[in-house]
Amino acid sequence: MKALEELIGLLSRLPGIGKKSAARIAFHLLKVDGQYASALAAAVAGLRERTKLCSQCGAFTEDDPCAVCSAEDRDHHVLCVVEQPQDVLTIEASREYCGMYHVLGALISPLDGVGPGALRLDRLVQRVEKMGVNEVVMATNPTVEGDTTALYIRKLLDGHDVRVTRLATGIPVGGDLEYADRLTLARSFRGRTPI
Amino acid sequence: MKALEELIGLLSRLPGIGKKSAARIAFHLLKVDGQYASALAAAVAGLRERTKLCSQCGAFTEDDPCAVCSAEDRDHHVLCVVEQPQDVLTIEASREYCGMYHVLGALISPLDGVGPGALRLDRLVQRVEKMGVNEVVMATNPTVEGDTTALYIRKLLDGHDVRVTRLATGIPVGGDLEYADRLTLARSFRGRTPI
Repeated sequence: MKALEELIGLLSRLPGIGKKSAARIAFHLLKVDGQYASALAAAVAGLRERTKLCSQCGAFTEDDPCAVCSAEDRDHHVLCVVEQPQDVLTIEASREYCGMYHVLGALISPLDGVGPGALRLDRLVQRVEKMGVNEVVMATNPTVEGDTTALYIRKLLDGHDVRVTRLATGIPVGGDLEYADRLTLARSFRGRTPI
Repeated sequence: MKALEELIGLLSRLPGIGKKSAARIAFHLLKVDGQYASALAAAVAGLRERTKLCSQCGAFTEDDPCAVCSAEDRDHHVLCVVEQPQDVLTIEASREYCGMYHVLGALISPLDGVGPGALRLDRLVQRVEKMGVNEVVMATNPTVEGDTTALYIRKLLDGHDVRVTRLATGIPVGGDLEYADRLTLARSFRGRTPI
């Protein structure tokens, strides 16, 4: 059963898919209609060809510039800075933000040997100046690397007339005090808001 | 981002894959080398074309008859009866059994309107007679449907000189008495073996 074994081997290299899940998916593909399997194969094959990075913000897109960068009804004076292209899609899914984006491509991480040079920072400063940005929202993860990068960018934009903000950290909605770690709890105290 | 959304939509229809896992897999495919994505697409597309069912036993195979049915060093007088083609692969992976297989394609399930007619039973009786089978091992799941089917087949083969056996049910290896359900525990008592 080379065809099956090959597919199971390839599938089990996907994130979150183990040997058993891979087998289950493969058997499922044998059971369902062939049209679906063909569509899936075509979508996997075509994904990389059809998807590129926006030359402006660095997000995934099929047309350059992307839909967000070319939208006239969005606020071009607010820039949300994220680590990876997929973060843009995550934030867009929340339907809360209607400004522009800027993808860094990486976070400063001295332990992994990643310095500020690896980030799309020149382009960020250029865009802040050219677009007349008045607020930069740092939406990097609330980790050491994300916090370091946010601080670095705040300093980098010190001479510019721009407000640098950071996404609030705290207890997730629906979460439980009992299960919140000490740092999260501490931050949610410091960031407490009037009701 | 139509390409991405299409792929995420298709992936999330796979068993065990939700919207979040589908997105994670899609982003992963954008990140890793293109060769892997092409190989995966080809494997998905080619699976159904390359895989058929063995005309003898009904298991998945690329060549007909399958490797098990045409193996000369396996015992052709023992027949293991399973529900689905993938069960053959599961049992083969245990490397415990070295006889032949017979895939029923379904289990008797009056509640779902599945009668004995939907199972490959004529072919089973034919094979038992032609191959001179002396043992039929019922390896259907230990569920109501699996047990019913096993009993039905035992009766069906009543006039034949063949021993019909059933896979042992009991506490799984590494399992815990505390978490075994009453029925499993009862069956493991009834099927207790001398040590």
